[in-house]
Amino acid sequence: MTTVATTAELELISAHGSFGGSQRFYRHRSAALGLPARFSVYLPPGIDSGAPLPALIYLAGLTCNEETFPIKSGAQRYAAEHGIALIAPDTSPRGAGVPGETDHWDLGVGAGFYVDATQPPWNHHYRMYSYVVEELVRVVTGCFNLDAARIGIFGHSMGGHGALTLALRNPSVFRSVSAFAPVAGPASCPWGAKAFGTFFGEHREDWLHHDATALIGQLNARFDGEILVDQGLDDQFLATQLRIDEFESVCRAASQPLKLRRHAGYDHGYYFISSFMGDHIAHHARHLKA
Amino acid sequence: MTTVATTAELELISAHGSFGGSQRFYRHRSAALGLPARFSVYLPPGIDSGAPLPALIYLAGLTCNEETFPIKSGAQRYAAEHGIALIAPDTSPRGAGVPGETDHWDLGVGAGFYVDATQPPWNHHYRMYSYVVEELVRVVTGCFNLDAARIGIFGHSMGGHGALTLALRNPSVFRSVSAFAPVAGPASCPWGAKAFGTFFGEHREDWLHHDATALIGQLNARFDGEILVDQGLDDQFLATQLRIDEFESVCRAASQPLKLRRHAGYDHGYYFISSFMGDHIAHHARHLKA
Repeated sequence: MTTVATTAELELISAHGSFGGSQRFYRHRSAALGLPARFSVYLPPGIDSGAPLPALIYLAGLTCNEETFPIKSGAQRYAAEHGIALIAPDTSPRGAGVPGETDHWDLGVGAGFYVDATQPPWNHHYRMYSYVVEELVRVVTGCFNLDAARIGIFGHSMGGHGALTLALRNPSVFRSVSAFAPVAGPASCPWGAKAFGTFFGEHREDWLHHDATALIGQLNARFDGEILVDQGLDDQFLATQLRIDEFESVCRAASQPLKLRRHAGYDHGYYFISSFMGDHIAHHARHLKA
Repeated sequence: MTTVATTAELELISAHGSFGGSQRFYRHRSAALGLPARFSVYLPPGIDSGAPLPALIYLAGLTCNEETFPIKSGAQRYAAEHGIALIAPDTSPRGAGVPGETDHWDLGVGAGFYVDATQPPWNHHYRMYSYVVEELVRVVTGCFNLDAARIGIFGHSMGGHGALTLALRNPSVFRSVSAFAPVAGPASCPWGAKAFGTFFGEHREDWLHHDATALIGQLNARFDGEILVDQGLDDQFLATQLRIDEFESVCRAASQPLKLRRHAGYDHGYYFISSFMGDHIAHHARHLKA
């Protein structure tokens, strides 16, 4: 059992019985963010007996927090069945005090885009990339009976962007990846341009390193394993923000294995996500338990 | 197909693909309440082809509304599997304008207790009993391809009280019943005494007719079929508000079939409810599809 971190670092906010396991909420002092941060953990039945279990990190979308996934996704049932833990961080630092950080629902608080900002004053606390890849993985594999060699990542919308880019950049950390309606080309959509312009300024190189389509198409990143993506065709953001057709094209050109499923009648919300959550957790289970 | 009401009565607020069916939200002019009202409907796959389907009405607890159940319960998956529709009304009238109706989280707005108030000024609009038993059943069986002879009812906490009392008083309307952590003896608990004292005044006869324990124990009501109740043992309201032991005692004395399951480690919230939602929908399916 890995014990890099200990539960002494964590303050338990609440714990709730769920499908034979435990849905928990924690607060801790984040070194990466320089602020207190919260995350949720679902521990499946049997977590404390036997070998370390695989874990899945879920990154949520704009305006969400660490409660969105456990409340709305219905994922605990599948995680209990497969014996996989679920981790969900917040979507931005809270309390950074950057002027204007709460003025826009799609930038700043609730909208950290899973990058490390380089532009002041954002660069002091808006470091969700380092928080997730380094600190959160270290803390949860240290504090719970989890296998650091079997961590997967998935997410929705802005969090789908986060899952794809974090996995493509860190294939030794994340062994499996999937996304629901991801912002697959943020450097060329309004949400992403606004965020990247603010967090990185005009340094376009930084933009491309945080754009899943550019990572595969221009920067030759590859993920060793199939990427699963589900996309609703009634998604109100499909035409303007997500760039899923371009992502599909670069994957095909690069021979990056991609299972992209388009679903008539589904929109951008959690009724869509919960409908296909079982398939995603089964996808990760196949890769993490192989 | 029953066509007592038509969809012309209903205004569709939104519709969302969910597990092959459709999660919808409607607004209508309620005659029983004398106000606009909202409810949610989950229509499983195949609703428009073939014979009318059974339906389940879910009554939510204090502070909830018609969105709570579809967002938090995870019920759609099971309803899709069993071919059962799900209906969830609001928990009180909205906009009645009774002085003080928003002063308390456990009385008034969000806390209608599924009774018809007799005391002015509450008696004009606080009529959730008639709304659910008469109007909502009529509207949904008229507007959708549902079988009025196969309606079940269930609920949580205040809504568990509502499900038990509405089913015991209307066994010809509701063919199956279950509850999560119900307020099983409202006439003798603080929540119920406060609400009933306000809605009914000192007319104790009215109190007992809306108390599941009194209905079975003193008023000889019976439900033709097993009542399923799940109760968490870490429920923060178990000792003070729910009176589940007394309910169990009167059911045993009256030979009322009751399956009461007590669960260590579960509290009063939706992590508890969602964990046992599949069992409840299977219970109703057995009775409604027999």
